[in-house]
Amino acid sequence: MKRIESTKNPQVKQWKKLLTKKEREKTGLFLVEGFHLVEEALKSNIVEQLILAETKTIPTSWNVDNIPIVIVTEAVIGELSDTETPQGIIAVCKHLHWSVDSVQTALFIDAVQDPGNLGTIIRTADAAGIDVVVVGEGSADIYNAKVMRATQGSLFHLPVVKGNIGQWIARFQNKHIPIYGTSLQHGVDYRSVAPSSSFALIVGNEGSGVSDKWLQQTTTNLYVPIYGKAESLNVAVATGILLYHLQKK
Amino acid sequence: MKRIESTKNPQVKQWKKLLTKKEREKTGLFLVEGFHLVEEALKSNIVEQLILAETKTIPTSWNVDNIPIVIVTEAVIGELSDTETPQGIIAVCKHLHWSVDSVQTALFIDAVQDPGNLGTIIRTADAAGIDVVVVGEGSADIYNAKVMRATQGSLFHLPVVKGNIGQWIARFQNKHIPIYGTSLQHGVDYRSVAPSSSFALIVGNEGSGVSDKWLQQTTTNLYVPIYGKAESLNVAVATGILLYHLQKK
Repeated sequence: MKRIESTKNPQVKQWKKLLTKKEREKTGLFLVEGFHLVEEALKSNIVEQLILAETKTIPTSWNVDNIPIVIVTEAVIGELSDTETPQGIIAVCKHLHWSVDSVQTALFIDAVQDPGNLGTIIRTADAAGIDVVVVGEGSADIYNAKVMRATQGSLFHLPVVKGNIGQWIARFQNKHIPIYGTSLQHGVDYRSVAPSSSFALIVGNEGSGVSDKWLQQTTTNLYVPIYGKAESLNVAVATGILLYHLQKK
Repeated sequence: MKRIESTKNPQVKQWKKLLTKKEREKTGLFLVEGFHLVEEALKSNIVEQLILAETKTIPTSWNVDNIPIVIVTEAVIGELSDTETPQGIIAVCKHLHWSVDSVQTALFIDAVQDPGNLGTIIRTADAAGIDVVVVGEGSADIYNAKVMRATQGSLFHLPVVKGNIGQWIARFQNKHIPIYGTSLQHGVDYRSVAPSSSFALIVGNEGSGVSDKWLQQTTTNLYVPIYGKAESLNVAVATGILLYHLQKK
């Protein structure tokens, strides 16, 4: 097995560049950190290389026969890690590719900027059994370490794709599937819509909500009523309330 | 107005101690940061002192006639701030006190440790119109800056009290109000319970859930079904789904 001790090694510098969105898009690669997420990545067959701290071992239950493993110092792991207490394992992975031909339920995410919110929304869509999550322009990058951590592995469970929300709205309109926007100002109480086995829901930016241009193209816009003095709900919480109401299982 | 330039000033050192839970509990004081939260604190009449960066001004709409204002350098604000880009205003506040005599709906929080989760849960309970939030042992401190930020001001909107969950369960049992625990292992689908205008819900720790000792004392324990491959929902998202289902408005 290859071994790297110095944080100044060119390979380490190359890996470190993958902490930027620009480099991830250029190379089609990203880093996955921690035992739980790396295990999920292995199951998805996207791992190109494993980076392991010299003090750690690969769990015996993992099948890593065809995957190159590089042993590194804790200092090298520290350079590549997004956390204060790294677990000592990082995988270099290829971007995920998904087939999204026959989806009946979808969540469209319009410019959700906080990585924790985006990751929690993806985890919630997974739990609710949604077929596809479309991450529109202006949102955090799905391959950002904080987003991945907040998904708790859901990024590997269901199709999560970057896409143009306008094109996806058109696609669902062509299939005659209802599209629900969310709007505190111009919506109806979400409980007035009956649960269904096919729908798309659009959720939006933490401050400004869903863009007007999308709200104008929906079947109906919904809101979650506020009974106390809060101005609004957190976007991930609102997504959970709406998806669990809308989906018919 | 008093003016402090040095971060080594004894008053600054005293304020800085309020960033620790220990000092907050000893003095009954806490720091509130940022224009939105300080405005909410002023409305609650708990502000003892305002600390203002020399580059900032107090909004003219605020009534601060009887409140001492100390002008400080950006460096002093930086010492006291929990954020990377401080807004330049901090209030020294007395702890909040609430009357909780006639509550009909309650959320009991058992050892939710992540400050962002705890704050988001409090914001969600406020939105849902719940009468009281009881924060049990093992939870993050409600006067922690990250918790307050995630509440978006809700800490000032409804009674949020530290308390013993066992005592609160007994109190609701005496009033013959149903108490719902949450448990993925030993619960019933939350939709089997009818909405009501009086109930208590218990939510629990991110990893281990609600303690068994509380689950044994509830009327019924509920779970939110998982339809995809996620292992669980984020605790704040689950709280939102449950509160919006349970409450009858």
